[in-house]
Amino acid sequence: MDKINLGATIPAYPMPVVLVGAHVNDKPNFLTVAWFCMASYKPPRIAIALGKNHYTNPGIKENKAFSVCLPSEDMVEVTDFCGIVSGKKTDKSKVFDLFYGELKTAPMIQDCPLTVECKLMEIVESGLNEIFIGEIIGTYTEERFLSDGKCDFEKMRPLILSHPDTTYWRLGEPFAKAWSVGKKHKARI
Amino acid sequence: MDKINLGATIPAYPMPVVLVGAHVNDKPNFLTVAWFCMASYKPPRIAIALGKNHYTNPGIKENKAFSVCLPSEDMVEVTDFCGIVSGKKTDKSKVFDLFYGELKTAPMIQDCPLTVECKLMEIVESGLNEIFIGEIIGTYTEERFLSDGKCDFEKMRPLILSHPDTTYWRLGEPFAKAWSVGKKHKARI
Repeated sequence: MDKINLGATIPAYPMPVVLVGAHVNDKPNFLTVAWFCMASYKPPRIAIALGKNHYTNPGIKENKAFSVCLPSEDMVEVTDFCGIVSGKKTDKSKVFDLFYGELKTAPMIQDCPLTVECKLMEIVESGLNEIFIGEIIGTYTEERFLSDGKCDFEKMRPLILSHPDTTYWRLGEPFAKAWSVGKKHKARI
Repeated sequence: MDKINLGATIPAYPMPVVLVGAHVNDKPNFLTVAWFCMASYKPPRIAIALGKNHYTNPGIKENKAFSVCLPSEDMVEVTDFCGIVSGKKTDKSKVFDLFYGELKTAPMIQDCPLTVECKLMEIVESGLNEIFIGEIIGTYTEERFLSDGKCDFEKMRPLILSHPDTTYWRLGEPFAKAWSVGKKHKARI
């Protein structure tokens, strides 16, 4: 089929959405982020790419700590709200019930099925963004989100965002096993 | 509810899966990757975090180019295959029908609904991983994957992977508009 070149642009793609927590001006604040990924397996590290002008950035730099909180689909309204409204204008410190782990400036959201607390290791500047790389100090969930001791995403119901069509999606059904289903292809060649 | 600390570990979370293409030893090679995200809005950049020992890494360094190809769910077997089998032992240059854009060492997969070609800008070492940050030179799709000129993920059917439960998932249904549904929360406070 003929390919169309959409140009030098951010490719739209559905990505899980997280709420990044930090203390800014000594108060908890949360920012909605879809640009994040794991950065290192050992030690476990996570990277988040934030626009340079966000209210959150100076707080992470000052305290060298942040959280990554993974909301469920029933939190779609409040998650989107934290992306619409800046901490510069609106105090978001009371939006969620919070808890803390080891780091006292990495606020985590009680209602999120999965949260991690991170110690800032490095900041990489890239264009209009700053990539914050944090070492994961703790990962928190609840018994009700596990099956056989493992995170169960049919229970967690993560929230997925695509952009620029600005759409939230549900996670669909599981349909194949990784590091396994590829053996069928291998057997054919 | 009581939180359980799973410890300093990579949080399992469903992430879209991509096939990263590069020329290694003058041949196209593809690696399955779930650790990627956008890195910069302007100029458009994408980051991929690869284990340091992958066969792909020296090829990206040599040619300063790579592709990020987004497979659809019907490509699950061949996508998983590229994650199971290393280019060190198996020639993956003939696995896919390929095309090229501007960069002659960023092989892209004809069957993938969305592909980007990237020029290597920076490598950030982090633990056992290397994060390759690439500037997006071109983004390719086909008319049949668009609706009103925009990428339509109900047509593209991206493939989503969770780990360590090693499960491939389908994308579910769209259910809310981003930068919009949060206004309902705002109206309540």
